[in-house]
Amino acid sequence: MRCGRFISFEGGEGSGKTTQIARLAETLRARGHDVVTTREPGGTDGAEAIRKLLLEGDAGRWTGRTEALLMNAARAEHVERLIRPALEAGAWVLTDRYAHSTLAYQGGGRGLESDELIALHFIATAGLWPDLTLLLDIEPEEGLARAGKRLDPNTRFDEETIEFHEEVRDVFRDIADVDERVALINAAADPDGVAGAILAEVEARLNP
Amino acid sequence: MRCGRFISFEGGEGSGKTTQIARLAETLRARGHDVVTTREPGGTDGAEAIRKLLLEGDAGRWTGRTEALLMNAARAEHVERLIRPALEAGAWVLTDRYAHSTLAYQGGGRGLESDELIALHFIATAGLWPDLTLLLDIEPEEGLARAGKRLDPNTRFDEETIEFHEEVRDVFRDIADVDERVALINAAADPDGVAGAILAEVEARLNP
Repeated sequence: MRCGRFISFEGGEGSGKTTQIARLAETLRARGHDVVTTREPGGTDGAEAIRKLLLEGDAGRWTGRTEALLMNAARAEHVERLIRPALEAGAWVLTDRYAHSTLAYQGGGRGLESDELIALHFIATAGLWPDLTLLLDIEPEEGLARAGKRLDPNTRFDEETIEFHEEVRDVFRDIADVDERVALINAAADPDGVAGAILAEVEARLNP
Repeated sequence: MRCGRFISFEGGEGSGKTTQIARLAETLRARGHDVVTTREPGGTDGAEAIRKLLLEGDAGRWTGRTEALLMNAARAEHVERLIRPALEAGAWVLTDRYAHSTLAYQGGGRGLESDELIALHFIATAGLWPDLTLLLDIEPEEGLARAGKRLDPNTRFDEETIEFHEEVRDVFRDIADVDERVALINAAADPDGVAGAILAEVEARLNP
């Protein structure tokens, strides 16, 4: 059934995912491919409603465990209603974040066990894994500066503490070390250089 | 840590769970126990927000898979923030629905695999299972009539079709057959008779 290609873009804030997804989509469309770009959490009406629950509210509104379950609920919806149908129709799907973000943020950041998170992923998606994951790697301090964020240890989830972002980056890099479907891209380069590195990986691996 | 007792009430609509929880709570309080009564999905602010997502919206808003993940997200919150702390403080916790409802509604009703649902339960609750489950068993037609519901095959989730309710009841009864911590109570009896049967099970098993 499935004949399209599925690529996820991962990385911390300010790593340039949005820009690079737009550039790769443009390149692929110029070569005649159907391309669907999307993001997580979200991507469908129901998943966006769950995204709203996840991002709004007081500090400490959700425990790490609930956060992981809500992320996977949104992902189940996204996969079943948007990603899988697009792949079956032959499109290339480029998503801004997917399963590795859950491993990095709820695993590395929140300390949940990775075997639990992987089991959850398989239950939520019936086992849909990307053909290629592009990890846009950048020093957290530099990424946050690019994103115009200041470090503030008092925000909800403490996601703005530098330690949290460093833990997240470590998990992303550890995954890239052991999973051959994950390509580590130096996102500190200029946007043209990053786009070139990404296209080289896509050409080498997926024959677009 | 845990020294209270955890009892879940399960059963279809109109099986009398609300009435019987109130009666058992009263009996236990009269014997000097602290008693917390609660319900699912819900029981905490966050879980009630998830409940709202689950119950509102158009027909077909959620797939069965997403429904199961949202139920477990609400349950994770409920367990971590209300049930477990109450048990650790020595209270008896009586909940209107818990894990068996997910097995019956998302498993039996929606056709998800029970091994996936059980794995999900363990991830969501870190393995918290009731000391006793009271299954208030009644013919779906009679329960629905008591609850003042008419059968309407066009409601969201089709939960009002008699076939759905019969499938749910079958799963509940199958679980009661194999799980010795589940007591089957004939909920078609008069309320005093049902309360007596419930108290007999609680006294025999949990020494209140």
